Amino acid sequence: MDYRIEKDTLGEMKVPSNKMWGAQTQRSKENFPIGQEKMPSEVIRAFAILKKSAALANRDLGKLSEAKAGAISQAADEILEGLLDEHFPLVVWQTGSGTQSNMNVNEVIAYRGNQLLEGKGGTEERLHPNDDVNMSQSSNDTFPTALHVAGVTAVEDKLLPAIAVLKATFDEKVETFKDVIKIGRTHLMDATPLTLGQEISGWSAMLEKSGTMIKESVQHMKELAIGGTAVGTGINAHPEFGDRAAAYISQFTQAKFTSARNKFHALTSHDEAVYTHGAIKGLAADLMKIANDVRWLASGPRSGLGEIRIPENEPGSSIMPGKVNPTQPEAITMVVAQVFGNDTTIGFAASQGNFELNVFKPVLIYNFLQSVNLLADSMLAFNDKCAVGIEANLDQIQHNLNNSLMLVTSLNPHIGYENAAKIAKKAHAEGTSLKEAALSTGLLTEEEFDRYVDPKKMI
Amino acid sequence: MDYRIEKDTLGEMKVPSNKMWGAQTQRSKENFPIGQEKMPSEVIRAFAILKKSAALANRDLGKLSEAKAGAISQAADEILEGLLDEHFPLVVWQTGSGTQSNMNVNEVIAYRGNQLLEGKGGTEERLHPNDDVNMSQSSNDTFPTALHVAGVTAVEDKLLPAIAVLKATFDEKVETFKDVIKIGRTHLMDATPLTLGQEISGWSAMLEKSGTMIKESVQHMKELAIGGTAVGTGINAHPEFGDRAAAYISQFTQAKFTSARNKFHALTSHDEAVYTHGAIKGLAADLMKIANDVRWLASGPRSGLGEIRIPENEPGSSIMPGKVNPTQPEAITMVVAQVFGNDTTIGFAASQGNFELNVFKPVLIYNFLQSVNLLADSMLAFNDKCAVGIEANLDQIQHNLNNSLMLVTSLNPHIGYENAAKIAKKAHAEGTSLKEAALSTGLLTEEEFDRYVDPKKMI
Amino acid sequence: MDYRIEKDTLGEMKVPSNKMWGAQTQRSKENFPIGQEKMPSEVIRAFAILKKSAALANRDLGKLSEAKAGAISQAADEILEGLLDEHFPLVVWQTGSGTQSNMNVNEVIAYRGNQLLEGKGGTEERLHPNDDVNMSQSSNDTFPTALHVAGVTAVEDKLLPAIAVLKATFDEKVETFKDVIKIGRTHLMDATPLTLGQEISGWSAMLEKSGTMIKESVQHMKELAIGGTAVGTGINAHPEFGDRAAAYISQFTQAKFTSARNKFHALTSHDEAVYTHGAIKGLAADLMKIANDVRWLASGPRSGLGEIRIPENEPGSSIMPGKVNPTQPEAITMVVAQVFGNDTTIGFAASQGNFELNVFKPVLIYNFLQSVNLLADSMLAFNDKCAVGIEANLDQIQHNLNNSLMLVTSLNPHIGYENAAKIAKKAHAEGTSLKEAALSTGLLTEEEFDRYVDPKKMI
Amino acid sequence: MDYRIEKDTLGEMKVPSNKMWGAQTQRSKENFPIGQEKMPSEVIRAFAILKKSAALANRDLGKLSEAKAGAISQAADEILEGLLDEHFPLVVWQTGSGTQSNMNVNEVIAYRGNQLLEGKGGTEERLHPNDDVNMSQSSNDTFPTALHVAGVTAVEDKLLPAIAVLKATFDEKVETFKDVIKIGRTHLMDATPLTLGQEISGWSAMLEKSGTMIKESVQHMKELAIGGTAVGTGINAHPEFGDRAAAYISQFTQAKFTSARNKFHALTSHDEAVYTHGAIKGLAADLMKIANDVRWLASGPRSGLGEIRIPENEPGSSIMPGKVNPTQPEAITMVVAQVFGNDTTIGFAASQGNFELNVFKPVLIYNFLQSVNLLADSMLAFNDKCAVGIEANLDQIQHNLNNSLMLVTSLNPHIGYENAAKIAKKAHAEGTSLKEAALSTGLLTEEEFDRYVDPKKMI
Repeated sequence: MDYRIEKDTLGEMKVPSNKMWGAQTQRSKENFPIGQEKMPSEVIRAFAILKKSAALANRDLGKLSEAKAGAISQAADEILEGLLDEHFPLVVWQTGSGTQSNMNVNEVIAYRGNQLLEGKGGTEERLHPNDDVNMSQSSNDTFPTALHVAGVTAVEDKLLPAIAVLKATFDEKVETFKDVIKIGRTHLMDATPLTLGQEISGWSAMLEKSGTMIKESVQHMKELAIGGTAVGTGINAHPEFGDRAAAYISQFTQAKFTSARNKFHALTSHDEAVYTHGAIKGLAADLMKIANDVRWLASGPRSGLGEIRIPENEPGSSIMPGKVNPTQPEAITMVVAQVFGNDTTIGFAASQGNFELNVFKPVLIYNFLQSVNLLADSMLAFNDKCAVGIEANLDQIQHNLNNSLMLVTSLNPHIGYENAAKIAKKAHAEGTSLKEAALSTGLLTEEEFDRYVDPKKMI
Repeated sequence: MDYRIEKDTLGEMKVPSNKMWGAQTQRSKENFPIGQEKMPSEVIRAFAILKKSAALANRDLGKLSEAKAGAISQAADEILEGLLDEHFPLVVWQTGSGTQSNMNVNEVIAYRGNQLLEGKGGTEERLHPNDDVNMSQSSNDTFPTALHVAGVTAVEDKLLPAIAVLKATFDEKVETFKDVIKIGRTHLMDATPLTLGQEISGWSAMLEKSGTMIKESVQHMKELAIGGTAVGTGINAHPEFGDRAAAYISQFTQAKFTSARNKFHALTSHDEAVYTHGAIKGLAADLMKIANDVRWLASGPRSGLGEIRIPENEPGSSIMPGKVNPTQPEAITMVVAQVFGNDTTIGFAASQGNFELNVFKPVLIYNFLQSVNLLADSMLAFNDKCAVGIEANLDQIQHNLNNSLMLVTSLNPHIGYENAAKIAKKAHAEGTSLKEAALSTGLLTEEEFDRYVDPKKMI
Repeated sequence: MDYRIEKDTLGEMKVPSNKMWGAQTQRSKENFPIGQEKMPSEVIRAFAILKKSAALANRDLGKLSEAKAGAISQAADEILEGLLDEHFPLVVWQTGSGTQSNMNVNEVIAYRGNQLLEGKGGTEERLHPNDDVNMSQSSNDTFPTALHVAGVTAVEDKLLPAIAVLKATFDEKVETFKDVIKIGRTHLMDATPLTLGQEISGWSAMLEKSGTMIKESVQHMKELAIGGTAVGTGINAHPEFGDRAAAYISQFTQAKFTSARNKFHALTSHDEAVYTHGAIKGLAADLMKIANDVRWLASGPRSGLGEIRIPENEPGSSIMPGKVNPTQPEAITMVVAQVFGNDTTIGFAASQGNFELNVFKPVLIYNFLQSVNLLADSMLAFNDKCAVGIEANLDQIQHNLNNSLMLVTSLNPHIGYENAAKIAKKAHAEGTSLKEAALSTGLLTEEEFDRYVDPKKMI
Repeated sequence: MDYRIEKDTLGEMKVPSNKMWGAQTQRSKENFPIGQEKMPSEVIRAFAILKKSAALANRDLGKLSEAKAGAISQAADEILEGLLDEHFPLVVWQTGSGTQSNMNVNEVIAYRGNQLLEGKGGTEERLHPNDDVNMSQSSNDTFPTALHVAGVTAVEDKLLPAIAVLKATFDEKVETFKDVIKIGRTHLMDATPLTLGQEISGWSAMLEKSGTMIKESVQHMKELAIGGTAVGTGINAHPEFGDRAAAYISQFTQAKFTSARNKFHALTSHDEAVYTHGAIKGLAADLMKIANDVRWLASGPRSGLGEIRIPENEPGSSIMPGKVNPTQPEAITMVVAQVFGNDTTIGFAASQGNFELNVFKPVLIYNFLQSVNLLADSMLAFNDKCAVGIEANLDQIQHNLNNSLMLVTSLNPHIGYENAAKIAKKAHAEGTSLKEAALSTGLLTEEEFDRYVDPKKMI
């Protein structure tokens, strides 16, 4: 392979000629041959937005020339367009401050920016990764800034819309099934009736509630560390730099970011990310319940509950011919299992800061983004391939409702809980209908029974 | 032991004569000899508030006589005053709906209420645990209501005030130490300076931020399931019952509770509790960092960092004479470990609902309240026995600052990152001061060095 | 209240006159008003065994007089008999080394031992908590020793026997139901048949497997830190002390404990406890599956799967008369949720050691013992109140089996997977029996069908 | 793109012409556009071993022709050689039984096998994915078999060797530093001395202990589900098939696999994987402690503990020139955070089985293998780039040791704990040496002090 020589303060390194990164990236690549998990592309993109914003803020403050700021901006834009993906080779399992990914971005932008400057005939202006691209910045404030920008963007642009899509489908089903009265179940046991629409309205309310909580919580991630530099004091940055950079970031992302009020917090605490992921875990818990309801209600086809039908998407078994399984709910529930683990990791990572820095940032954002992406993707797949196709199995629903003993509950106000219990137990023991058992006790007339025990009035 | 006979729909049970509970409580006591963990007293108190509120709402709606409502209210008040504690013997590990604790409250209130009714000469009016005390209610809506009332109350009346106490102490320290310039540390390595006040301001900001998030998140727990009865449809309850009961609960707790908009959600989803506990986990993560900072900064006395002193509260060792340990931070960090586990439990519990009910409620609220209580208690102990007594060890702080090589950072804007690095490396390698190394390079004059490298300007 | 004055190296303390503890216990009580969770009694008992063993070892080595060793032993025996329970007031949330509980034991034994010595007319020999009761020991080696002794004892004397009880019940059911052919279910969907006995044999195998793994893993906890004293070097202890103390502990517990080969590991690593609790988590995961199977198979009574019946132990609902719920499985599954959280806590705690000590020991053993106790108790309750009473609902089982389409699987070897799938799909679409569909395709004769599709041959 | 038409029992699908997979793989690819996480290559390779073994077992049992078995074997070998990687496009987030990945392997082997059969002039023999490649198998037994084979292989061939490498390095350091006496630290506070070799021996013992536990636990994963087919009864498989297939798998992997004694357990329980990952979590907890020790001992360079030096691998800061950070320990600790989360996921996944199957298999093995790979990779990187280069900073070590007050502990046996405490406190309060304080009390002569207080005798 073809190499060129790059150097940093530790000395020279051989870098592949066709790659734009520099010596520090190369060191990291060689020093951390750990796993396959690349630094998420969302983080790289957030860095690009940040570097561009920083360059413009430095320019506005008179610290960086127009030419340099322009070159940095243009190189950053190329990253955002996905043109430079191959130049970001580093994995998550590097230094815990993410310094090496910050330097990767600095090096690539400097390299590409210098190409652009040369192209414009600029021979005097040369971008230095540290002095120019990283001007007024430290990894210690840029990485948490990129972490928040990536996290907020993923939540707002990907997760919340996916929730909305699935919720809309459920809302449609609520309407469609609003008159389908069915047996309720608590403790898995037959209970008083409700409509299928009401049952699904619970799923919709879950998505609405957890969506609201996620949206609310993620606002806290809009405070950015930028401006804090090395330890939070803002050394080597202009006092206005943080605010100005945050303003540019807001402009480029269409989200309202601000420079954090306390930079010592911003470098070392990740309570906002823990909080937001806690809201996301709430969504995951809801989805587990929803997916379980769907697959149980669709269970069978002959010896399950069978009250709904879901689309048949794949042959379900390599050995049992004709079997069809609730595969979309299964994918969702596996994602939930993943999100629960990610939440453990994120809490642990957030707790291990020391003094002026928390050095568990890459693992934290890796898990955060994995949760967001998997939940969004799996909700959309579940929506398209399963939820939209949910149908009521009216025969089975009617059959179950008619058999139910728990309609007896509506007799409580008329004959008391204990008498009502006697009727239910009698019917259960003798295998009769509730009505037969009720009439045989002499506690009610048939007319009374029919008036009191009417599923339509119970919902 | 002396017994009396009580009965329920399954038959007769022997109950200790001196206990107010009934047959169902007795059954649970015998059927679940599991562990020592009692249903938290906060839940019992929340149930008392709820039963009183329900009785008054039923009275207002004309469903319950004034005498009965009064007896229920008075019995509930006695529970709230702690007079009936011995009559709530059940453990957490019972039915997952908490039905047995709901019935325990129903039975005790009925028993005690009937004593009160008799005392007033009332011979005709007899309270029935189900028909009267549980009127318009089901365990399925009352337990989650009590869960939310207990959770909100614990958070707002205990946890948030404890956060405020510790934050006030930190804020005082921020002021006291605002001019104490010290070395910063990132990656545990020497970094650029900041003041001890700034360092502690990060702790204060953590408490402020996580306190804000907890306060925000707990609002969602103010939606109550009450009114949903068995499966969410509100069967056997007046349509206004939920709102009226919630209004009374708000009145008695001074918190703004409402009847949940979607009762199917309210019975089966615990996303709000997961969310709030996620915020609480954010606090725990912050406290881990704070406690670690305190013990590390106080480490020594001779071979640690030793930049602060904390109170000596106990002999630290049973073998090493004169040893004193950072025991308060240790208690905090063990509490954090507990909260992290509780968060796993709560997420799991919330995910396992089916159809119209989630039957992991007792374990969920047990863990939630344990987190709240342990965090509040340990923050107050830490505050009183440790934080208020934090003192700066000025000699050590000054010594460390003077030796630091990272003051070199302030040279970046003047001589560039690479030259600055050369100076730092030279000083490190030769064991000299930064100034000696700098001057020996000839890159700066002594006057320049003294002007640029001034810790006071770096903070 | 009546007080006496006790003192330690920090000065004087008022101690309630009727309590045997001394100044250090009193300090801890006042300094850590955190939560309700007492240091588990199993740990106190393990300490008593340890103190007695240490005294005898010291006596044998000529370091402690016969009289003193006797007094210590007798006081320790009184702890083991439960006579001194009220003298151990400390909570889990104290110093992370457990020093204060070690001193609590030292103080109570010294106090009680001195009473005994006086009773025997001994006026010259006085026990000192540190110099005598703690002789050759440090909290740093005694607490992890007590942790291991308590953990091993709880696992071997409580958990493993409870597993055996439940397994025996399942094995009996396996035999009882060995000829009850029923439909299988995978993905909750109808699958090929098996016997109910086979299904339950899976549960039995789970208990056997996880029991074996727990038993295997707990052997590693039989290495004890004793002999390591303050930092693992064994300072102030005779070189033979560790082995001799471990031998006495083995004698008193009937378990084969040894003095750990590497004491630096023994003070600071808790990998063995993590490992054993990992095995316990495996059991918990299995119990979740078993409990879910039981409640699902028993679901109904009319609109669930209803293939088994379980005992009716309590009225299931405060509103729905006659409802009976699977409450024992619910208690088990809540315990599982707790164990999962405890596992998170234990892993976290084990990871936070520094240098010569891990100071998360009390929280670790608290969670470990809670898991063991809850699992053992809930398995026994589940066994007695549910598992032994499991009955097959033969009508429902036969009905489901007859309807099943997945019997088609046995046709694969004869007509191929694709043809078999056609038959199953045809029957499903047309609502016919498998046989009708099969014959209508002309792929088999009736005689062939009856020969190939015989549930008895599929199990 | 170029397509060809493939079909399965649900109908026709377009498959890219240059890909070997069939209709079912294509369906899964389209139905599950979720995340980036591919089914791990270790699972695909384990499947290849399994398919080859199954083919040979079926051949030996007279169920499959020599030609077909040969074609399957050869295609499987090509998978093992990595020649067919591009034909396995499916992600983790699919059906929870892994059916689609089983079918992916069946389809690719059938496709490639048919190419090979044609190449040999075989026109009559055509492999069918289900009838031939999947003969005597179901996804329900093959996926857990592949899961165990992949897990065992990764642990034994990758993780255990990596542990051994790092342990060997530590053992060498133990020898090198066996005479370097240094201060001990408990609770982060100065304690009695030990040698640096002893300190590191604790790390070595951790690796030995957790390595032993991992090795022990993974034996249980050598029981394979193969032979159980659809629900554990072994329908459509020869009774000897499971044992014969397991024997071939053992032969090809050099590990002793057996066919599980209870197949109902094997399809639905993952207690063995939970157990093994619990042992792996023990290792992770140990590594957290080791990595923290290393970075703390190396902290500074001027204002930390600074007792060891570690290699300088990269510029540590983008803003602070000359800064070098403990990046290898940081990567390790982030991996630990990941492993802790993975353990939560695995426990959750293992708990969610129902009836004859657990459908959380892909997420379980994905997390399991991620833990194994990350731990192995990061231990090797840490070893090569950090551990081998650890050096003692003798000046700092000697300075700390000389200053220590905890050497006083060795006076206990001579003057008692309380007198010794007085001396330590006096020295601490007055800032003097221990000797000065001791002599000033008159409790010992200088000769006695020098004899008793000798660090060399304390280790």
